[in-house]
Amino acid sequence: MTLDDLPTPCLLLDLDVLERNLARMRDAIARHPGVTLRPHMKTAKSARVADLAAPGKGPITVSTLAEARHFADHGFHDQIYAVGIVPAKLDAVAALNAAGASVKVITDDPDTAAAIAAHPGPIEALIEIDVGEGRAGVSPDEVTLLRVAHALGHRLAGVLSHSGHSYAGRSDAAMAEVAEAERAALTRAAARLRQMDAQPRIVSAGASPTAMHARSLQGITELRAGVYMLGDLLQGQIGTHPLDDIAVTVLTSVIGCYPARGAVLVDAGALALSKDRSTEAAPRDWGFGRVLDLEARPTLGDALVTRVHQEHGEVRAAAGGLPLDRLAVGARLRIAPNHACLTAAAHERYHVLHAGRLVAQWERVNFW
Amino acid sequence: MTLDDLPTPCLLLDLDVLERNLARMRDAIARHPGVTLRPHMKTAKSARVADLAAPGKGPITVSTLAEARHFADHGFHDQIYAVGIVPAKLDAVAALNAAGASVKVITDDPDTAAAIAAHPGPIEALIEIDVGEGRAGVSPDEVTLLRVAHALGHRLAGVLSHSGHSYAGRSDAAMAEVAEAERAALTRAAARLRQMDAQPRIVSAGASPTAMHARSLQGITELRAGVYMLGDLLQGQIGTHPLDDIAVTVLTSVIGCYPARGAVLVDAGALALSKDRSTEAAPRDWGFGRVLDLEARPTLGDALVTRVHQEHGEVRAAAGGLPLDRLAVGARLRIAPNHACLTAAAHERYHVLHAGRLVAQWERVNFW
Repeated sequence: MTLDDLPTPCLLLDLDVLERNLARMRDAIARHPGVTLRPHMKTAKSARVADLAAPGKGPITVSTLAEARHFADHGFHDQIYAVGIVPAKLDAVAALNAAGASVKVITDDPDTAAAIAAHPGPIEALIEIDVGEGRAGVSPDEVTLLRVAHALGHRLAGVLSHSGHSYAGRSDAAMAEVAEAERAALTRAAARLRQMDAQPRIVSAGASPTAMHARSLQGITELRAGVYMLGDLLQGQIGTHPLDDIAVTVLTSVIGCYPARGAVLVDAGALALSKDRSTEAAPRDWGFGRVLDLEARPTLGDALVTRVHQEHGEVRAAAGGLPLDRLAVGARLRIAPNHACLTAAAHERYHVLHAGRLVAQWERVNFW
Repeated sequence: MTLDDLPTPCLLLDLDVLERNLARMRDAIARHPGVTLRPHMKTAKSARVADLAAPGKGPITVSTLAEARHFADHGFHDQIYAVGIVPAKLDAVAALNAAGASVKVITDDPDTAAAIAAHPGPIEALIEIDVGEGRAGVSPDEVTLLRVAHALGHRLAGVLSHSGHSYAGRSDAAMAEVAEAERAALTRAAARLRQMDAQPRIVSAGASPTAMHARSLQGITELRAGVYMLGDLLQGQIGTHPLDDIAVTVLTSVIGCYPARGAVLVDAGALALSKDRSTEAAPRDWGFGRVLDLEARPTLGDALVTRVHQEHGEVRAAAGGLPLDRLAVGARLRIAPNHACLTAAAHERYHVLHAGRLVAQWERVNFW
């Protein structure tokens, strides 16, 4: 089986690039003795990838109950389910924990904290802290923080923040600045809890760019990051990895040639690529994806996906035009994604490449 | 089982709205004696929906090989696979046809047409005609049309066009105008083929808005339309159906309340809703979706999803703010989608409602 035999569109995972990305993050974290990496599996959604990213069934982060179940089934017991919990989901978490897992939930809501404390099953929670993203979480300086901690009582496991606003940064120094602001806010929250004799043993920060570029992590016990594993066109532009180290690409076939308008159509459209436009505000806007040749090399110049319909992608090149002689109907291309989490979620499985050869298929755990 | 018991996020399908939408399209087509409706199943991707939309195992349209197999397995033999074919997919189509189906492919490429003609299996093709959308297809006036027909020989089944550019229309009159331009171009292509003694027995036009508003279909044998079944916030604004007749909604839970910024977070984010922004240029921009109460009523004013992250959606209301007293963590809402095709594709199945009660689960055939 070669790349010429796979049905298109489908998702490729280059194991060699994945290994490079994992090693780069391990090295970045190793600069901070005592800080644990808790990889976020929401991007890869694969136990096979978790075996590489969290070796020895190490701690992981998940974003859905489906992931929590999947990874617990594969022996990854130490999990944080890092999306605000609702009381209706507590029974499912408690069932996993009763069967041997340790899935910790997060909340920023006093009533939900009370429901967690009152739940008969074994469930601990971290309090989500807003460190500037303005998405979820309590401010470290609000009294709500103390109310949530009081409601949780001995079910308190720690505090957690997400520095997703780092994605707007455009330099290593900007990332380091966001990381330091996150560290300061999160450790301030932990200190306030200790003043009231609560014991936040986990102080969990993270996002790929800040994990890569933080200078000090004093007071932080662990970092969460996910998209660094696979990489994408946004992370490649904001310094998480070199632009070429994108481990996932969509394999696609040319389905129509339109020389009069300098375009071809491919069979990867809105469903196979997602409609994510993360690079819209990045230094280089790659439309709906960057178009590479079958060896994932940029030999098509600056070719990109300019438009998507459900199953159609339109490919053009701004400078110099497309090499249309290489792009007859049936020609195969690879498309690097704007946002690996969203593009990968459109696919059931990875076709895994090692040293340029197909070596395996790895299933993903999509849906909820 | 009630809407309070389902795990969130998940996809709801209101059977009563679906039936209204189907009846409305049937009535629109009935104004044109001799014209057949060939519903496009790329939106619903469900044999149970096809049983209602194409009763008696009538003709259908599909967008992937996975759909072609699924619907053939369920007895829908007469299919058009309406995405430009590549030679590598012909064996799969021929295998379905050898087993009893009649899956017709489409192309606009002379070399691909020659590959179809040379294929040993039973495969017919329609020639795709560009009637103004500028996506795929040959112009009815190009010589390429004759070359493709010549290459296909007796494998020619007909001509086909898609008036996707009708989505930019903003009135019934605009839709009727696009429909008439499509009719004129498509029948001109058919006439040119007849002049060379080719026999295009199928003359297939379509898109939901033009199917609904065409005045004359003289020379057209069938109409393809899909999104009208489920409906969405764009189709509701361009006259395909009343805005309230959206049959699919995403059921979601509030996971965080932020009175200081007048927002709540829900557990339907970019994956559960898609990042489709079809209404961005519509009269009313609904962000990433319109937020309704548990009975799908607009009792939350103009509440909409303003931002999405992978598993988080932020809900706000422009005028008057949100009724935050009704939106504690755990409260349940429903979100009407911008674009039903993309939002539905994020889900494995429909939870089917009839007269407000859950009556079934219907599986979808996602992926390729």
